[in-house]
Amino acid sequence: MTLVSEFNEYRERMNEVILEKDNLPLKRFFSLDHQMYQEGSIDVKTKELLGLVASMVLRCDDCIKYHLGKAKECGTTTEQIYEVFAIANMVGGSICIPHTRRAAEYWEILVKE
Amino acid sequence: MTLVSEFNEYRERMNEVILEKDNLPLKRFFSLDHQMYQEGSIDVKTKELLGLVASMVLRCDDCIKYHLGKAKECGTTTEQIYEVFAIANMVGGSICIPHTRRAAEYWEILVKE
Amino acid sequence: MTLVSEFNEYRERMNEVILEKDNLPLKRFFSLDHQMYQEGSIDVKTKELLGLVASMVLRCDDCIKYHLGKAKECGTTTEQIYEVFAIANMVGGSICIPHTRRAAEYWEILVKE
Amino acid sequence: MTLVSEFNEYRERMNEVILEKDNLPLKRFFSLDHQMYQEGSIDVKTKELLGLVASMVLRCDDCIKYHLGKAKECGTTTEQIYEVFAIANMVGGSICIPHTRRAAEYWEILVKE
Amino acid sequence: MTLVSEFNEYRERMNEVILEKDNLPLKRFFSLDHQMYQEGSIDVKTKELLGLVASMVLRCDDCIKYHLGKAKECGTTTEQIYEVFAIANMVGGSICIPHTRRAAEYWEILVKE
Amino acid sequence: MTLVSEFNEYRERMNEVILEKDNLPLKRFFSLDHQMYQEGSIDVKTKELLGLVASMVLRCDDCIKYHLGKAKECGTTTEQIYEVFAIANMVGGSICIPHTRRAAEYWEILVKE
Repeated sequence: MTLVSEFNEYRERMNEVILEKDNLPLKRFFSLDHQMYQEGSIDVKTKELLGLVASMVLRCDDCIKYHLGKAKECGTTTEQIYEVFAIANMVGGSICIPHTRRAAEYWEILVKE
Repeated sequence: MTLVSEFNEYRERMNEVILEKDNLPLKRFFSLDHQMYQEGSIDVKTKELLGLVASMVLRCDDCIKYHLGKAKECGTTTEQIYEVFAIANMVGGSICIPHTRRAAEYWEILVKE
Repeated sequence: MTLVSEFNEYRERMNEVILEKDNLPLKRFFSLDHQMYQEGSIDVKTKELLGLVASMVLRCDDCIKYHLGKAKECGTTTEQIYEVFAIANMVGGSICIPHTRRAAEYWEILVKE
Repeated sequence: MTLVSEFNEYRERMNEVILEKDNLPLKRFFSLDHQMYQEGSIDVKTKELLGLVASMVLRCDDCIKYHLGKAKECGTTTEQIYEVFAIANMVGGSICIPHTRRAAEYWEILVKE
Repeated sequence: MTLVSEFNEYRERMNEVILEKDNLPLKRFFSLDHQMYQEGSIDVKTKELLGLVASMVLRCDDCIKYHLGKAKECGTTTEQIYEVFAIANMVGGSICIPHTRRAAEYWEILVKE
Repeated sequence: MTLVSEFNEYRERMNEVILEKDNLPLKRFFSLDHQMYQEGSIDVKTKELLGLVASMVLRCDDCIKYHLGKAKECGTTTEQIYEVFAIANMVGGSICIPHTRRAAEYWEILVKE
């Protein structure tokens, strides 16, 4: 099992555990999280890159993985991904470097799949 | 060994390593950390939930585990825990979702023990 | 005009500016923010204290003011507020002290009103 | 003097104070900060929106103002700006709301200038 | 009244308001905050620089001012202060720049007093 | 393989993956990260401690490991390291405790090597 399938499997399994508790505001929060990245006056691909850079400066590895997966589906190139990485490091500082390493590792796998 | 015993064992072992170094201000800091959650004009259970929500918005998995354990001992219900999770996600944003997943996994184990 | 009325006036005025833009996900987000603090298996007053401690460790002065106002309406005592301040400082560190100063100033006004 | 000119005047004046100290790594850091937003495989406007969302989730009012100014120059519409605000709030949580209020106030001025 | 005396006056006045509430753990927390910067195997001046860089990456303007004042008393030079600023910006990212501007402004006043 | 060699091996391998992508601003950012810790009006050892405390309050385990390794090379004693840990916990709060545990574990290995 690759890092990618492992991440997706855990994510789906735990989302189920959370959502079956039927906390209505939390379910709405999860649903709203999807709506944010729908096509609007900004296109889906750009929105995924916005989600990626935000996840990176906030240093959330799982969020980074999620948006890398989506960015790949939208046809983002490696060159573009690294321009997002560069801005994230600049804004968020060198503490983003370890997250960039793990993001780079994940991206290599996505590209090869 | 479950996630719970593994967490507690490492925590105790490393606390010993730290405290035996006899850095007095650091020892006082560790001691003060316990005093904060003592019964006062706010009851112990509520204080543990305050510690939990603070740990969650600051996205500290180990702190979340610790307060989940304490909240369980105080008789917090699953419904109440998820209301804390909901507020934490609202205040701290979707970057708290991966921490909520790990918290949910840990809570499932606590409930079954 | 006190700090309290000034805060409330600006907050309401700018919320209007934001909401009239009719960004649907953002409006839902604002609405969800209110739903989180409704009575549930945890009472409203405790939820406001959860919101307060979360705002304090994340060091959001305006969020602190908002929850202090709500906590006052719910009958929170000064002793209880300071127990929340204490936990917030412990969890969030000495960088919370300046926010505690501003929170203390605001609370003095709320108590006198 | 509007919020916009006040911000720009202080920013330029203090940058001078900082740069005249001739700390070479710090000067390179300031210079690198500009290079990050140059046209690349991602266009300048998108890069400014990336800088904006990153600034918003990290809750840096001055950084938000700076990128709002740049986004305006690049022809970003109000509808697009609010889609960025929405994503920032979702990722960063309700603690971003007060920053969104100040950002909305600043944007109103930029649009009218 | 300069920025420096204004800061010190507010700080002392609000510390009094907080400490007179007699929340014992909070009073111990304030006291411990002083003990941390006492001479040890690391000298006082270096400890103040550690406090400064920590405050800067955590972007707490008041904490920065406090440690700048202390660093001045310990004989820190402008060249040394800017080396701390440089490291803080590198580690914490460009979101530290606005805080560096305010820190630079405050340092200019301290140097002239 | 110890925690130390494992950390260094992954760090070097992923840095290569990142740097071979030839994103010029990102390469300059990595290079600047090294320049910051060069001897200046503040000595190298103190700069490493500044990097350590900054990494600790920002809770970046890998950054902590890196600076612990460098601090060891500079002859920092265990007593000094724990004084840095103490300040970091005070400034950053009890959420730094789990990072202090992992840092203490890593330091024990460094000292024994």
